[in-house]
Parts: sequence; structure tokens; C-alpha cells
Amino acid sequence: MIKECLENVRKNVPLVHNITNYVTVNDVANVILACGGSPIMSDDEGDVEDITSICGGLNINIGTLNKNTIPSMYLAGKKANELGHVVLLDPVGAGASKLRTDTAVGLMKEIRFDVIRGNISEIKTLAYGSGSTKGVDADVADAVTEDTLDNAVAFVKKLSAETGSIIAVTGAIDLVADSEKCYVIRNGRPEMGKITGTGCQLSGMMTAYVVANQDNKLEAAAAAVMVMGLAGEIGYSHLQAFEGNSTYRNRIIDAIYNMDGDTLEQGAKFEIR
Amino acid sequence: MIKECLENVRKNVPLVHNITNYVTVNDVANVILACGGSPIMSDDEGDVEDITSICGGLNINIGTLNKNTIPSMYLAGKKANELGHVVLLDPVGAGASKLRTDTAVGLMKEIRFDVIRGNISEIKTLAYGSGSTKGVDADVADAVTEDTLDNAVAFVKKLSAETGSIIAVTGAIDLVADSEKCYVIRNGRPEMGKITGTGCQLSGMMTAYVVANQDNKLEAAAAAVMVMGLAGEIGYSHLQAFEGNSTYRNRIIDAIYNMDGDTLEQGAKFEIR
Amino acid sequence: MIKECLENVRKNVPLVHNITNYVTVNDVANVILACGGSPIMSDDEGDVEDITSICGGLNINIGTLNKNTIPSMYLAGKKANELGHVVLLDPVGAGASKLRTDTAVGLMKEIRFDVIRGNISEIKTLAYGSGSTKGVDADVADAVTEDTLDNAVAFVKKLSAETGSIIAVTGAIDLVADSEKCYVIRNGRPEMGKITGTGCQLSGMMTAYVVANQDNKLEAAAAAVMVMGLAGEIGYSHLQAFEGNSTYRNRIIDAIYNMDGDTLEQGAKFEIR
Repeated sequence: MIKECLENVRKNVPLVHNITNYVTVNDVANVILACGGSPIMSDDEGDVEDITSICGGLNINIGTLNKNTIPSMYLAGKKANELGHVVLLDPVGAGASKLRTDTAVGLMKEIRFDVIRGNISEIKTLAYGSGSTKGVDADVADAVTEDTLDNAVAFVKKLSAETGSIIAVTGAIDLVADSEKCYVIRNGRPEMGKITGTGCQLSGMMTAYVVANQDNKLEAAAAAVMVMGLAGEIGYSHLQAFEGNSTYRNRIIDAIYNMDGDTLEQGAKFEIR
Repeated sequence: MIKECLENVRKNVPLVHNITNYVTVNDVANVILACGGSPIMSDDEGDVEDITSICGGLNINIGTLNKNTIPSMYLAGKKANELGHVVLLDPVGAGASKLRTDTAVGLMKEIRFDVIRGNISEIKTLAYGSGSTKGVDADVADAVTEDTLDNAVAFVKKLSAETGSIIAVTGAIDLVADSEKCYVIRNGRPEMGKITGTGCQLSGMMTAYVVANQDNKLEAAAAAVMVMGLAGEIGYSHLQAFEGNSTYRNRIIDAIYNMDGDTLEQGAKFEIR
Repeated sequence: MIKECLENVRKNVPLVHNITNYVTVNDVANVILACGGSPIMSDDEGDVEDITSICGGLNINIGTLNKNTIPSMYLAGKKANELGHVVLLDPVGAGASKLRTDTAVGLMKEIRFDVIRGNISEIKTLAYGSGSTKGVDADVADAVTEDTLDNAVAFVKKLSAETGSIIAVTGAIDLVADSEKCYVIRNGRPEMGKITGTGCQLSGMMTAYVVANQDNKLEAAAAAVMVMGLAGEIGYSHLQAFEGNSTYRNRIIDAIYNMDGDTLEQGAKFEIR
């Protein structure tokens, strides 16, 4: 299954429209290319509907949102919904500012997202900010660890049930869930946190994976998380002692570029809950 | 000739003003530095005329155009024309959206471009969209191959005659033509398509080349294409098995940085038609 | 002292808000991570006050300023001043356009900067443009060399006295001064000028250093300059013959990532005047 998810991306070359931040955009483009997709970036109100129409999926990342790009996110999202395209939300920094929280929550109200991917604190902000989990889950911790895992799994399944979106929470342990099934993934390395934008990169790649595997969206989203984590492990294994986070960034993208289905299947570390 | 083109860039250190997309801008800057030029990026209406005035050339790339940067493209282009500076257009995504097509065609009407560089589909869009080749060339294929080469060469020469710009079409086979003479260039590797922005990088470098070789603009534009393609070959030869598109990106820029006139002359694969 | 400055950054993990240009922003983020800090980028008027409030320092870089981000620079700067946060100005291109000069000078009038970091020509523009050194220093040369060093040291001390900011001028010889004490630093390599954004990277890292060392701001700013220069030396020593500016960029960030206090103390080349 996981293996087929990877192979379908290489076979179908999904075209992904990204409205994303200018910090990590180049890496997002190269990661989408590395995994077998094709990226387009466009964020002007006058441009996004045309561009999203020719794509298979839309990746909305609010990392450096501004007064010009926020309306573009709504326009593109609605057009993508109309056309039945895959749409993903990466709520970068939700909870860190009112504008980010309001934008993420507002987008969730007006646009149907196939997947929402963030870290635990962003996803919790959405859950409470959007009122969708009120009264519940007050005890979801700020990190997903072995100790907090049961609560966290219950939280993401519930949020998925309430939003209708696949919920992907990435961190030391990654969770990818719909309302009934949660992939608990233990690939990756802590040093990945020392590179800017591995989360943004994953969101771009995940959009490509879901576009290319529309009959198995949950598995596809989980497979993308495994690819990223495993690439983090493989990339790390090639580092020399004097190399640091900048070369590591390249090595991870290189590992995604070279990954095949068998490598993924052998290296993926997950359980389903 | 080709060798001198390269050496003149290193000797003259041309200053290039870039109004370009935020996806590949860092690589564009590093490529301009690698080839011997000096890059400046500026895209605000209040800034671009001053900045372009102190430069030798202007590179307009519509990759992530928006309502603020489009007027800046017109302002900077007109000022550069007034001052007799070299101006290049990279019509990224022309044909993919109305805004991109209209902007590229509009710029061609109001600004005199020394060079227009794009892929075959972008250049065809300009040719038809601008009405400059109406009734002709309806059989130019969507890829320049050995089979379609004769038609493609005729097409770019004709477009050059009609626009007064050097036309550079890059792909598996690259064409750089004025109305009478077309360089057909066969450097490069297909894996370059797996890196975001090699086209944008080439446009930045090509602007530097033309600025530094104003008596031989056609040769200079062709030389930049050869440098890029040859750097793609050299960079590829240094890749290890576990390396992919991210390291390849660095290797290409490194190869541009290290390239000298003799290497270029020996490695360039071209004919003139 | 210098050693403790480095160690305090790794210990305190200072959060740095960056309003910066889109050319070098990814490298700025990775350098802040490499040195032990944590970067956030945000430049919309509706977002910057919230974001800067949760950070320890603010890095304002005018590299690709525009009509939307200039008001954000004022808003964020004032909020950071109110909260007693560290604020740094990188006046990229001051002197190259009226908008850049006016913005830098305007910001200096309304915002209290802990540090202003630029090249000699930018810093001279601020000194004359802001009227703060009128009638003096007319003989500060356009490069800081052994021959012009005495004048340059006097100039930066005087500008520091007049502005109340630490002044950091980087070039072949680097100067970091308050009104009484000037660090003269001789680390680094000329090849660093062939990479876009080493100055921007330094400004980001310097902000992190000053935030983490608020009792020793001058030493912290100087230490950041030494780290950058020494990383340039170490990174260069790992380059192979076929590698150029793109790999060098990675190697420098890698060297910052791996640098410890002892390496810094042994490699730092400076005197105090």
C-alpha cells in the first residue's frame, strides 16, 4: 500500500499549486520535484484561480501570509473545492498571532480541506479556535510522546471526525488520522528540527501524494510522512562530521529524490491505532 | 567568441537588476555571482527606477507576479529602455493563466526587450498571444526535437524578426536566434528539469552575459545557454549515487563558478543554422 | 567572554523575529537555527506586532522593502522598543535608491536600534543621510583597509555616540563599536563576497547573539562577526577543487552549526581599539 502510494506519485506526476511562504518556498518546490510531482507557485488574486484550475492539488501554507495573499487563499481554495481538487492546509504559526489563527480558522470554515497538517500546538489552536472540539481534549499535551500518545490519538481522530479532514500532526512521533484510523509513525530524527521548513516541505509533498492516490488519501498522507522521516534518517547517515544543518537539508531532499517503494516499505516504522 | 563572452563577464562584473519570483531568487543571485556578475533585487514601484539606473541590465521574470510587482516591471523596463540598458524577459508560465499571458504580452508592447527567454510553450504563447506571428507556425510542436527542429528554427527566427528581440527557447535542444542566425545548442542533461529554477537562473546569467558583451548580444546569449548546459553536465559528473536534485542544484552553480573560457570552448556543443 | 557569548545562544535559544528580504531569507533562517536560535518571519502590518511580542529580538532588513512591508517595519520596531526587545537594522542598499535611504534614515529616527550593521557605504549613507555626522568624517574611505583604519574606527565610534546604537561595519576588516570601544576583526575570506546574503545571515545571527547576551551587547555583536568570519575560513577549508560558491554557502552554515566556544576562542582574530 505504502509502496504503491510512492510509485503512483512517480507515475502520475501530480501538479501541485502552492500558495506558500517565501522562507521555504524553494525547498518546497525541490521536494515536490524530488518525490515525482511538479510544483507551481502563484499567490495573486488575479492569478490563483487560473493556476489552480490546471493543477491536481492545492497546498495552502500561511507562513508569511499578508493582506494580498489571504484573499488569494480563499479564492484558490474555493475554486479547488469546486473542481474537486485535493486541498491541504498548513497552518504555520496558528496560535502565535491573531491574524494567523483567524486566517486558519476562517479558511477551515469556508474551504473543505482533505488534509490539515501542522505541529501539535498549531493543530490544538485550530481545534479550540474553531470551536470544533470545545469541552474536550483539554488534556492534550504540548508534545506527542509515548506517555501522551493515547490522548493525542483520540484527539486527532475526534478532530478529523469534526472537520472531515485528515489530520496530520508531526513531531517526535507523527500522527496521521481520519475519524477511525490513526497511523502512528516513528521515522525521522531530532536534527530535522534544526532545518527551516521540513514541515512546509512535507506539506507540499503530502499534497502530491494525496493527489496521486485519491482512492487512499489517508494512506497516501501517512506515506508522505514516512518518506520525509525516512529521508531524514537516510540523509543523516550520509553526513560527515563537519557537515551541519545546511548540508543536511540537501541530503534529505536527495534521499527523497532517490527513494523507491522497496526502501520505503523496509524503512517505514508505523503502527495503526 | 564564446570564450571571450565568458571572460568579458568576469572582467566587467555587470550589475543586474532582477525583478523576479521569490521561488528561485536566491539561486538566481548566486548564479549571477558565480558567472562573474553582481545581482540586485528590487520590485517596489518606489524603488525600481533608482535601482535599475545604477545597473547595466534588467531581468524581468514574471514567475510570481502580483498587483504590486507588475507596475514595477513596466516602470523599470521603461527606465531601462530610456537609459539604453539591456532588458530581458522571462515569461514564466505564460499560457498557464490569463494574468501571466496578458502581462508578458503587455510588457512586450511597451518595452523593447533585447532578449526573450522561455520554454517552447511560453514562447509560442507570446507569439500567438501578441499576434506577432499570426497565420504562421501553427505547426510548431510543443517540444524542440530533431524531428521538429527545422520548423522550430524558422519559428524563432521569424519571431525575432517580428519582435526585434533575440529569442531563446530552452529545452532538450536549445535555440538562440535573431532574425538571421540561430544557435542550436545540445548541452545539458534531462535531470536539470528536476531542479526548480534552472530556467530562471539562466535568464539572470544571460542578462549578465549580454550586458558584458553588447557588441555581440546574440553570441553572448548563446554562450550563457552553453555555460548553463555544460555546467549541468559537469555538475552531474560529480554526483555520488546517493545524491539527488538538491545537491545537483549546488553542483551546477559550483560548475558555473569554476568555469573558464577554455572549458566552455571545449565543452560547448552547437551548430549555427 | 567571546566563548560565553556563543554558549549563551545555544543555552537560551533566542527567538528572533525577522522582517527581511525574500532573496536570502531561507539562509537567514538556517543560520539562526545553526547558531542555536530560533527564527520567525512575518512582515504584514496585521501580524508583526503579535509576532514580535513573543520574540526576544527583531531583525529589520530592508533588502526587498516595499509599500506593504515598510509600515510593518515601523510597527514592529516600535512594539519591540516598547517591550525592551533587542532591535537590529540592516540597511541593505542604503544609498542605492532614495526609498532605501529614506526608509533607513526614517527608521533610525523613530526606532531605537541596539545595533546597525551594514557595509561601509551603507553606513556612511546613514551617517550623512541622517545628518548625524555632519561636517565630520568626510574622509572616511569607501573600504576599511589597514591604511584607512584609524579614520574608520573614529567614524564608527562617533556614529555610535550620536545614534546610541552599536555600529557594525563588515568588509575585508570588520569593525564593531560603541562610542568608546571598537572591535577590529580580521576573520573571514574574500570568497564570502561571492555568496549572496552573508551580510543578511550575519544580521540574523547577530540579533540572536545580542538577545542571548544582553549584559554584553557589544561583545555579543562582535562575537557574531567572528563566528561568521571563522565559519567562512573553516567552511573554505572543506571545499574540494570542483566546488564553488553554492557549496561554500552550505559549508559556512554547517561550520556555524558545528562551532563551539573553544573553536571560536582559538580562531577569533581581533584587537580592541
